[in-house]
Amino acid sequence: MATDSAAPSPARLTHLFEPRSIALIGASDRSNWSHRIVDGLRVIGYDGALHYVNPKGGEAHGQPLVRSVTDIEETPDLAFVMVPASAVLEAMRDIARAGITSAIVLSSGFAELGDEGRRAQEELRALAAEHGITVLGPNALGYVNTDARVALKPFPPGEPLRSGSIAVVSQSGNVTVQLLNMARSFDIGVSLAVSTGNEMDVRIADVVDFLVDHEATRVITVFTEAFPDPHAFLAACRRARAAGKLVVCLKAGRSEAAARAALAHTGSLVGNDAVIDAFLRSAGVVRVSSLEDLLVVADTFAHTGPIDGAMALLTISGGTCDIVADAAEDIGLELAELAGETVTELKQVLPELAAAQNPLDVTGAAVTDATLMARTLAVVARDPGVGVVLVAQEMDHQAENLAWGREALERLSAEAAAAACPAILANTTVRYVNERVREIRAAAAAPTVFGGVSRILPAIAAIGEWTTRAVSTEAEEFTIDIGSITAPRQGTWSEATSRALLESAGVPVVPAVVAASPAAAAAAAADWEGRVALKVVSDDIVHKSDVGGVALDIAPDEVEDAATTLLRRVSAAVPDATIDGVLVTPMREPGVDLLVGVIHEAGWGHVLAVGLGGIWAEVFGDVQRIALPASPAQFEAALRRLRAWPLLDGVRGAEPVDLSALVEILSRIAALAVSLGDDMAAVEVNPLRARGTQIEALDAAVVWNG
Amino acid sequence: MATDSAAPSPARLTHLFEPRSIALIGASDRSNWSHRIVDGLRVIGYDGALHYVNPKGGEAHGQPLVRSVTDIEETPDLAFVMVPASAVLEAMRDIARAGITSAIVLSSGFAELGDEGRRAQEELRALAAEHGITVLGPNALGYVNTDARVALKPFPPGEPLRSGSIAVVSQSGNVTVQLLNMARSFDIGVSLAVSTGNEMDVRIADVVDFLVDHEATRVITVFTEAFPDPHAFLAACRRARAAGKLVVCLKAGRSEAAARAALAHTGSLVGNDAVIDAFLRSAGVVRVSSLEDLLVVADTFAHTGPIDGAMALLTISGGTCDIVADAAEDIGLELAELAGETVTELKQVLPELAAAQNPLDVTGAAVTDATLMARTLAVVARDPGVGVVLVAQEMDHQAENLAWGREALERLSAEAAAAACPAILANTTVRYVNERVREIRAAAAAPTVFGGVSRILPAIAAIGEWTTRAVSTEAEEFTIDIGSITAPRQGTWSEATSRALLESAGVPVVPAVVAASPAAAAAAAADWEGRVALKVVSDDIVHKSDVGGVALDIAPDEVEDAATTLLRRVSAAVPDATIDGVLVTPMREPGVDLLVGVIHEAGWGHVLAVGLGGIWAEVFGDVQRIALPASPAQFEAALRRLRAWPLLDGVRGAEPVDLSALVEILSRIAALAVSLGDDMAAVEVNPLRARGTQIEALDAAVVWNG
Repeated sequence: MATDSAAPSPARLTHLFEPRSIALIGASDRSNWSHRIVDGLRVIGYDGALHYVNPKGGEAHGQPLVRSVTDIEETPDLAFVMVPASAVLEAMRDIARAGITSAIVLSSGFAELGDEGRRAQEELRALAAEHGITVLGPNALGYVNTDARVALKPFPPGEPLRSGSIAVVSQSGNVTVQLLNMARSFDIGVSLAVSTGNEMDVRIADVVDFLVDHEATRVITVFTEAFPDPHAFLAACRRARAAGKLVVCLKAGRSEAAARAALAHTGSLVGNDAVIDAFLRSAGVVRVSSLEDLLVVADTFAHTGPIDGAMALLTISGGTCDIVADAAEDIGLELAELAGETVTELKQVLPELAAAQNPLDVTGAAVTDATLMARTLAVVARDPGVGVVLVAQEMDHQAENLAWGREALERLSAEAAAAACPAILANTTVRYVNERVREIRAAAAAPTVFGGVSRILPAIAAIGEWTTRAVSTEAEEFTIDIGSITAPRQGTWSEATSRALLESAGVPVVPAVVAASPAAAAAAAADWEGRVALKVVSDDIVHKSDVGGVALDIAPDEVEDAATTLLRRVSAAVPDATIDGVLVTPMREPGVDLLVGVIHEAGWGHVLAVGLGGIWAEVFGDVQRIALPASPAQFEAALRRLRAWPLLDGVRGAEPVDLSALVEILSRIAALAVSLGDDMAAVEVNPLRARGTQIEALDAAVVWNG
Repeated sequence: MATDSAAPSPARLTHLFEPRSIALIGASDRSNWSHRIVDGLRVIGYDGALHYVNPKGGEAHGQPLVRSVTDIEETPDLAFVMVPASAVLEAMRDIARAGITSAIVLSSGFAELGDEGRRAQEELRALAAEHGITVLGPNALGYVNTDARVALKPFPPGEPLRSGSIAVVSQSGNVTVQLLNMARSFDIGVSLAVSTGNEMDVRIADVVDFLVDHEATRVITVFTEAFPDPHAFLAACRRARAAGKLVVCLKAGRSEAAARAALAHTGSLVGNDAVIDAFLRSAGVVRVSSLEDLLVVADTFAHTGPIDGAMALLTISGGTCDIVADAAEDIGLELAELAGETVTELKQVLPELAAAQNPLDVTGAAVTDATLMARTLAVVARDPGVGVVLVAQEMDHQAENLAWGREALERLSAEAAAAACPAILANTTVRYVNERVREIRAAAAAPTVFGGVSRILPAIAAIGEWTTRAVSTEAEEFTIDIGSITAPRQGTWSEATSRALLESAGVPVVPAVVAASPAAAAAAAADWEGRVALKVVSDDIVHKSDVGGVALDIAPDEVEDAATTLLRRVSAAVPDATIDGVLVTPMREPGVDLLVGVIHEAGWGHVLAVGLGGIWAEVFGDVQRIALPASPAQFEAALRRLRAWPLLDGVRGAEPVDLSALVEILSRIAALAVSLGDDMAAVEVNPLRARGTQIEALDAAVVWNG
């Protein structure tokens, strides 16, 4: 991996992905690869210059071979290298001599093979970098660019890909083939599909960055098992978001077993998945967990763009209405409540038996009236509460078998194009798309989306969430002056020091006094009304409870005795510990106890985690992670995503927690932790007790890497 | 609905689904329906007798028409009625006169139209019942029986359905069409597909019961929005389970919005979904939430049968390994740990670069060696820890485009057929199956499963769970003698009466004394060591805490004062309440507090719910429901399904709860509640405190319907 080379600029990738002159190095009639590349260029209709290169000379594909790229009169935009690994370096030297600035290396036999391969790859990288050659690969299956009509990929072409606005970027060649086969199967339009292979030079981040400025592309799908340079990838995703382009990502290798598989076959770092998730979210990426969903989200967005509002569903089946209503509830997709005016209008359009509601069953009357569904769509799409309309029925089957089906499809497509909000058509379930269906769809310019409602509904929900999601637009720096706290930045800070640090950042902390003796503890307790908690103060003791160093709920007149007992207990348990006294704090009323922690993940940055304290986070896994820096809106959205949110929102008539105060405190803890820099291992407040407007840290710890 | 007619016996459905002589009533060259029925019979290759009936006489479909079924010489097995609703009753009278015992009524215009239609349907039902005629419909889209080669359905046939072992049963005609179109699209074999329509006589339960004895059928898929007769359906499902046949069910209409849609279009009762879920589980049904999953689970089971053991996955893509490992972890599907011997054998078979692990990437070497995958499969399937092998790759694409792909498919199919455990093949993602692929698959007899790994893995997990699931085999009766408790069965019983009831059933209850005065309370408390809880005793007070009627954690010497204060507080809050005293119980150490309740759902029966007590069940929805009666294994499985299970199992080194004791207590509470009969509205223990081997009810309530 090119860790020290500068990232190629998007403009540098133009020659790579939109060449008007290509040199095929290793062209030969005896090579399957060579045949497939030439076939692929023919099928897609490439009409630029093509030069066949082979040091052996002679002929291939009915064309004369030149022995070296240096023998070509013009300077090709791009060299495609399909020679054995051992001959790649020599080919690259020729490329450099010919002044060619872009190359694709299909050949395998590099870093994917282990140490020896890595050395060969490093030699290749250094040579390319020296001559400023942009390289895709090695071990890359190339690409298909339907927009520029260039295909450079060694797998069978099948029928030609339909051109469209979905870009596919994948490290894995096999996954690229899977995605293109799926796209072909279901009549999905693709703009540019790239397999990046070993990512010696051009990485996924570079391709995404290129695609932000690629006019034909509206949505970018990414498959990867690792992010070699998170910052570059996140920056490219933020640019895409700002340009209104959706990035959908399948990052595989979350589980332990997957981590092992990836180790065996790429050697790439598989990071902490929850952290990756937080950063992808903050950069405006939609993450999915199957290749089908990758394409369905992309296919849906390609037709809808951003979705701002609730969904309306039209169908001719009551069963489908029920299935859709259930699925919408399961995934939290909002179904639009139709406005009174819409209901009135619908009653003019619908047959008597149909109920003017959402999901809307227009009834089997649509089987004889080919205009019914289109007229219904026009009314529903005008409803101000409707952000997207999905028409689900046996679309292709009807269009293929029945005259009214074709007519209905044409009218619907015209109405969808003119509709007041995005409107899409779909087979209710996933379905075969044969040649005849392709033709009928194309003739109608039908905005048909693949995958069936069970995949399209989650896609609509994801796009809706993306449309209104608060994202990080830039990595603004913020610091907190921690002033007088000069404790050495190592080990685990004592509760007292940690408390002082939080206070310096403006985080409310429960009052406390460090008492040097039981008598002093009693005096301190007398200053507060009510019962107190006692905790031993010692830099030598991390887990205070484990050594009997905590006593809770002590009445004021029992403090001196309790402190004496506590100190005796701790001294017995840890005879060598230096004890600085007893921390006295007032007991607080019960509230919602949150765990708030910030950690630093190498390569990615700081992440704040928040969830219910105690065993709840552990057993229920109810923790949200927010990549830092984050805006108040991002903190608030994270709190609302907690399953425990009703506890904060005031369940069973309890007083709701002051949300803006809580968000402010999270922001301060975040800013403080980031200020501490990369030496900080963790800042943890546990618990942060929230009860109405009173929100206080009851305990805190700061841990350093050193 | 035929609520008072006896269910047709399976044998009675033989004439309906396997007729050798059919009368088409309403045959006409001017009817689309008529053409489609005749086409359907021709395409499927029906070779029995066919009689064309129309009172107008003349000819249709090139055949002479008889004016009435009574004019046919023989007695047909089945009459298919496709006349207008107004003529159906007259047709049914003719059917009765002709001695025909089975009929399908395609005609709509009955109960689905409202009150008037319901009256017409009731007239039809009475007539059919009087003459012992078995009727499918009205408003039924008929059926396709690929085994008996009979198709009687009015939708376009498309290509003929492949025969297979999957039965489809659906109330909704539209959903039947969707499922058959999906089956055709993806080359899935169907045995019998039935749309039951208005279910005036033959209901889904009857068809399922018929299919239990239908040899060609191995797996039964059901779509419905309601269960008009739960007991008949559950009984049929239990018979299927006992026969080793899988029932997969999509019950739609769970959400509130769906309940509304169903109300608008069927008028069927939509029951409490969680209760339905519990009963379906107990009867051995696998429930899914999409039509795709309905077919994928069925398609997988059709090839694997029961799955007893963990999964092994073979592929040629590292990316797929990662995706599969992630998905398996997400859904709790166990990936087999390969035995040492398997690893040793694999090293002989696999190329050097491949790691002998699971998921297993055999590497791109399979692209040149068409035998590699088959040889690998043979080794992995012999591993004793492997219960099923899934081979996932670009199966169809390779077979269609490449000679090695076809050869690899043939070898793999032969090896799968001979394998030591079930082995199935799949495209990694969902994919188009064209005519050419169909032929190649058929020639190889390939055990290819539809849906891609993202749907097949959950299907394998569901089948594995089904294979080992404890189910209720019969509705055994059990009763608990509640002896001396003679309180009137109405309203809400007091805590003291409820406690006595639980004790009579052998449920451990925390000791308690009802003290008539504060002094008596102090005396009672003195009998136990440690602190106590006090609760007001009054039949007039349901929510004791709300009126200050509970005092917790009272020291022995403070009991009298606390009881006095408590009684004064309650009297002030509820001046009219009759107060019988103070209940004194010892405070218990904290433990896991469970909520255990039993309710009775009309039409279904008793259900026990168990989950964490307090706000946790409410906020996290972590409740399991078990249909009663249930076996100890079913209670234990339900406890293990709780997300809070780690709390019971001893998280963070805590003592685990005595599982067999807990199961015994749940069994006793269940038996008690069932003994109380249908007048019981709820028996609730909240909390049931579990701490190691000490498990006790701390509070209880019994509520009656009266």
